[in-house]
Amino acid sequence: MKLLHTADWHIGRTLNGYSLLDEQKQAFEQLLQIAKDEQVDGIVIAGDIYDRAIPSTNAVTTLDKMLQEINLDDKLPIYAISGNHDGAKRLNFGRQWMKQTDFHLNTLLQEAFTPIETEDLQIFMLPFFDPMDARVYYQQQGMDEDDVKNIHTISQAMELVLNDIYQLFDPNKKHLLISHFAVSPSADEEIELTSETTSKVGGLQTLTADQFSQFDYVMLGHIHTRFASPNEHVRYSGSPVKFNVKEARLKNQGKGVDIVDFSGDEITTEFKEITPKTDLIVLEEDWATLTDPNFYQTQPTHSDWFAITVKDFDRSKHINVRAKLQEIYGTVVELDYENLVQVANAPANAANLSELSPDNIVDQFFKSITGKDLSHDQKELVDNIFVDLGKED
Amino acid sequence: MKLLHTADWHIGRTLNGYSLLDEQKQAFEQLLQIAKDEQVDGIVIAGDIYDRAIPSTNAVTTLDKMLQEINLDDKLPIYAISGNHDGAKRLNFGRQWMKQTDFHLNTLLQEAFTPIETEDLQIFMLPFFDPMDARVYYQQQGMDEDDVKNIHTISQAMELVLNDIYQLFDPNKKHLLISHFAVSPSADEEIELTSETTSKVGGLQTLTADQFSQFDYVMLGHIHTRFASPNEHVRYSGSPVKFNVKEARLKNQGKGVDIVDFSGDEITTEFKEITPKTDLIVLEEDWATLTDPNFYQTQPTHSDWFAITVKDFDRSKHINVRAKLQEIYGTVVELDYENLVQVANAPANAANLSELSPDNIVDQFFKSITGKDLSHDQKELVDNIFVDLGKED
Repeated sequence: MKLLHTADWHIGRTLNGYSLLDEQKQAFEQLLQIAKDEQVDGIVIAGDIYDRAIPSTNAVTTLDKMLQEINLDDKLPIYAISGNHDGAKRLNFGRQWMKQTDFHLNTLLQEAFTPIETEDLQIFMLPFFDPMDARVYYQQQGMDEDDVKNIHTISQAMELVLNDIYQLFDPNKKHLLISHFAVSPSADEEIELTSETTSKVGGLQTLTADQFSQFDYVMLGHIHTRFASPNEHVRYSGSPVKFNVKEARLKNQGKGVDIVDFSGDEITTEFKEITPKTDLIVLEEDWATLTDPNFYQTQPTHSDWFAITVKDFDRSKHINVRAKLQEIYGTVVELDYENLVQVANAPANAANLSELSPDNIVDQFFKSITGKDLSHDQKELVDNIFVDLGKED
Repeated sequence: MKLLHTADWHIGRTLNGYSLLDEQKQAFEQLLQIAKDEQVDGIVIAGDIYDRAIPSTNAVTTLDKMLQEINLDDKLPIYAISGNHDGAKRLNFGRQWMKQTDFHLNTLLQEAFTPIETEDLQIFMLPFFDPMDARVYYQQQGMDEDDVKNIHTISQAMELVLNDIYQLFDPNKKHLLISHFAVSPSADEEIELTSETTSKVGGLQTLTADQFSQFDYVMLGHIHTRFASPNEHVRYSGSPVKFNVKEARLKNQGKGVDIVDFSGDEITTEFKEITPKTDLIVLEEDWATLTDPNFYQTQPTHSDWFAITVKDFDRSKHINVRAKLQEIYGTVVELDYENLVQVANAPANAANLSELSPDNIVDQFFKSITGKDLSHDQKELVDNIFVDLGKED
């Protein structure tokens, strides 16, 4: 059996207000082509299918079409779970009909205890859940009240869940888990994550790869880069597209999917890259370089998206920075400054902010951005606003 | 062929804040039992399946379960269209999977031109649309620009749509239309509607039954009572539950579904009643009667819902009216007054309201409700609010 592992589609997501839908559609078409070329037996989507619990109509229509292409047009089975971004109950609609064509979707903890059985594989699909969901589930299972109350962390909850799953193992088959969590290589080894919900995990709250060691393979979602995979057999596929500038900054970290082959004695994983339609280019240069034709003519202007950090910038010398950069580069999805040339009297750092009055902070901010003092009228306006805000209390 | 005709489920609707979900579930179970007892060949849902374009999670879960019971458990075909309350594109999700078990759902105008063919019946499913949808459709069909612009009313749009449908008629079969609109018996005969979106229809904007005369039968949704049916073969099933007090006031207008039999030479319609779980009782009595045990002990208190109008009520004599009535009757979903005893200086009718200043209106209203004048402080507060509101302009 050969499966394509993907996750974190986040259909409907935007990047600083720019829709990623076209990007996501294009990545999907490549993903489907890979599935067909590799003649896989199914596609695993390990959670965060949508970006939000109540996705936009456009997102709903887009996902519906993608799933149809996989499952109805190309007759490929789907093994999908809900992630923390999905509205589990809402996503659930219609799944009993979808099951008929081997489109399997799990959105509830209790569903993890009924594996899908293939000839040589047991597929356990464990959707995202939190300790409270585990409490409710184990209470319903008749667990002792005190034991239920002792479920505090996701690590404790997972321990119970996995032990119950291990009881269901058929020793004659390989065991695959599909899930959606942040998992560290080990308890004392922290990993940096690019999922936007957590920037670091570690300590007692963290799940660790050894908790999953009885599985032959674990396909994870939640962290958006495959380089966060705890080990060879507990893996993140990463998202099919880049969602933010932080991800774009990581060089040589192309997006894609994993092709996992369970047929031999050894389970093998092969990464297949997805080429972005619109790449996200990160530039960190000074103003002179950014506006120099010799520099920008070497850039893929007006086709890709740019995240630009202007270095050593003196605001007093330029206005309409964004407009000028957009004229040169096309779509500038993020604009930032590094080592901004400060004007006199601007606060040297944020440490003394707490000692300033609110109107003083506005005053300083205005000065640091424009290089000018607030006018008399502007000062009065700011004063009045803070007086009014004070009244609200 | 025998079909059950229902419409306007409005799953997720509330009545003055009270959820109707339990009521709707219970009515559904009766509906399904009728379908089984009558051995129908399918269930028609003529639009407004949900109450809102973005239904609550509870509504989504409830509808999903109902549709599963019909189509997957009891293997009954479903013929459903979207109404004006449904979010057509959102409702669309998963329908290609549902089609596999004869769950047919149309949400777009263009889908009306592909009938479902049974041995002796052509079923045309025309979802709710507006003149703008018709313009877009006919533009795509290559209609002359000027002709497209001439589509102003739903009546004009429907004329075009129906003419196109008539071209598709198989003369060897009967022709059924399922749709969701307000349809009058004839152009000069206005009907009173209980759909909340329109209280009366008539004139040029109105669809009339003769426009549909080429169909052997028309199953409609939109108007919530079957008594609004234009004629014997162009019929509203009405909603399965009472949605408001106006409907409850109509005596002998029990809710239910139609069983329509197409097998003989004559198409026959039989109404099957659905008994409400919680009835909505309308009381219009004076305070002495309402609080008299001899009266209220004859009422189904604490089991049904009450909409109470207190007649000839003198507010100065009683306080906590709602609390007292709830203590006696249980759930009071609506409380109103008729012929309220006015206190001195209260405006005799609403006609002179337009001549009063805003603060005067508040003053009068306060007096009519409490029997007291506004205090000096209260008057000042009201004054200040209106001064502030004036500033906003």
